[in-house]
Amino acid sequence: MQRFVNDPDYIVDDMVKGFVKAHEDLIVKSEKNDRVVKYKNAPVEGKVGLVTGGGSGHEPAFLGYVGENMMDAAAVGEIFSSPSAQTFYDAFLEADAGKGVACLFGNYAGDNMNVKMAIRKAGKKGVEVKMVAATDDISSSPKETKEKRHGIAGGVFMWKIGGARAALGGSLDEVIQSAQKAVDATRSICVGLEPCTIPAVGHPNFNIENGKMEFGIGHHGEPGMNVQELKSADEIADQMTEAVCEDLELARGDETAVILSGLGATPVMEQYVLYGRAEKYLERKGIHVYRAFVGNYVTSLDMNGAALTIMRLDDELKELLDYEAGCPGLTVKAK
Amino acid sequence: MQRFVNDPDYIVDDMVKGFVKAHEDLIVKSEKNDRVVKYKNAPVEGKVGLVTGGGSGHEPAFLGYVGENMMDAAAVGEIFSSPSAQTFYDAFLEADAGKGVACLFGNYAGDNMNVKMAIRKAGKKGVEVKMVAATDDISSSPKETKEKRHGIAGGVFMWKIGGARAALGGSLDEVIQSAQKAVDATRSICVGLEPCTIPAVGHPNFNIENGKMEFGIGHHGEPGMNVQELKSADEIADQMTEAVCEDLELARGDETAVILSGLGATPVMEQYVLYGRAEKYLERKGIHVYRAFVGNYVTSLDMNGAALTIMRLDDELKELLDYEAGCPGLTVKAK
Repeated sequence: MQRFVNDPDYIVDDMVKGFVKAHEDLIVKSEKNDRVVKYKNAPVEGKVGLVTGGGSGHEPAFLGYVGENMMDAAAVGEIFSSPSAQTFYDAFLEADAGKGVACLFGNYAGDNMNVKMAIRKAGKKGVEVKMVAATDDISSSPKETKEKRHGIAGGVFMWKIGGARAALGGSLDEVIQSAQKAVDATRSICVGLEPCTIPAVGHPNFNIENGKMEFGIGHHGEPGMNVQELKSADEIADQMTEAVCEDLELARGDETAVILSGLGATPVMEQYVLYGRAEKYLERKGIHVYRAFVGNYVTSLDMNGAALTIMRLDDELKELLDYEAGCPGLTVKAK
Repeated sequence: MQRFVNDPDYIVDDMVKGFVKAHEDLIVKSEKNDRVVKYKNAPVEGKVGLVTGGGSGHEPAFLGYVGENMMDAAAVGEIFSSPSAQTFYDAFLEADAGKGVACLFGNYAGDNMNVKMAIRKAGKKGVEVKMVAATDDISSSPKETKEKRHGIAGGVFMWKIGGARAALGGSLDEVIQSAQKAVDATRSICVGLEPCTIPAVGHPNFNIENGKMEFGIGHHGEPGMNVQELKSADEIADQMTEAVCEDLELARGDETAVILSGLGATPVMEQYVLYGRAEKYLERKGIHVYRAFVGNYVTSLDMNGAALTIMRLDDELKELLDYEAGCPGLTVKAK
């Protein structure tokens, strides 16, 4: 394993330190909890607080989506594992300005359990917290049990939409409603070409054979829909776009926002190759891309692979997507 | 080789198509030359035109630095090879609004030759073009022959500073002067852990042994200063920062801007680990970081490695660095 790492058991600490230093114009560490980072102006007076969180190794997620008109605080877990309930709770308190807190996270079992415990604890302290879980990964559960699906890069749209609604003065219920609307309108699919290695383990926890690819792989190596022969970029992009379009029931005339995210070790050049073909597929189906994002938005350590995320837009989602935002993971300028 | 690729001979075309589609709010392809992309508002009336260009495989460089208050056009070469003189020439014409054009590029032999040919050709057409070549890579030539050094991620500062000077109404000579000032104030060093593979070749053109690292490796695998045992992230960051500080003769009290760029296959998490330690080194020396950038700014296909770039600031460079800019590779909001 050729990696930039010190003691692998402390890589999350090292990462958080570097992150806070790099983004000190936007981000500060909580004084109460080393695993909570917050927007330097949080809690923002008069605004609903916004919190996300999850395991590390997905940078810039989750902490990179803290910033202006985005999340107010993030709870940082160990690699691929949930932050503790206490950490989510501390993040809620950092974000709360008395208008309640929306917790927007990724629907993994550990996160779900800890977020709910933290919500109960916050309730006892008089801080109202409501939650939305992203469920965009279509490979993680069948359509009939969509509520069990995991969140991957679709979380970025949930955070962007929820963040804008809160910035526009939305109440807690309105923020929850808009974030849920983004989740309902968003689907993703992931393809893995080479596995990732947890630094403290030192070798991949799963295997992708040379000449093969795993279609629908999860962000921690969860088995996908199937293992296939490695195909051309165009064939892969077509297959990904088709799967997302079908699940989201996209139709001619629909407007969309699209993310093509690398998974950590995917060259930027190849991300654009995939994106170009995905948009071509959509064009052929008469589906318009209103905004596109290509880059490392949600990663999995050093996994070689890509995720395609599509959100169907309506006027409300478009307005919220276009609302100015600035955080390490994403900058949006008003159109 | 597990890659997202179609016919490897056409990967640059595929990438450019995807790039233009993804960024159609900012970027259009030239109608005259498929290997030239330009800012949608270029040529910008009353403004000096700005052009960059170079080989592909370094995305988001070079084409990703075209945009608002950045480059007006970019010439796109084959993988790791210079765009043709004709392509640079066509980029000059796309950027020229009658106030002359500044060509800001990376000082590789092929680029140098082709840029100079294109400048002569443009001169005959009555378009004045002047050039600045980035020379930030301290490993590419000794200090006594600094003018022979190659440009790597330091180009980003050259483009940002030149772009802001032009946006502020600077004359061609003033833009050249500011861009040259950025180059003179900037140094970089690169460390490689694993080599990259040109898709049409299918295997790495050079080797980095397991357990070793190449200190000072070039962005195309050019041999570095030396091959060392693979060290801890902290030791690597210290060594990189020390080398840059020494060459740039940074002193207590200096203010700087810093880029920590991944080289394509470097996990975002590890980029932050390196950055954190680099800033700590600077702090210990009494050197202040005014702005920091961590991410894939200039890459080398799928190379696993990192580049550290530091620019020494004065009031002029600070003002120009802070000037609002928006392009796919970099967004700067006024402080």
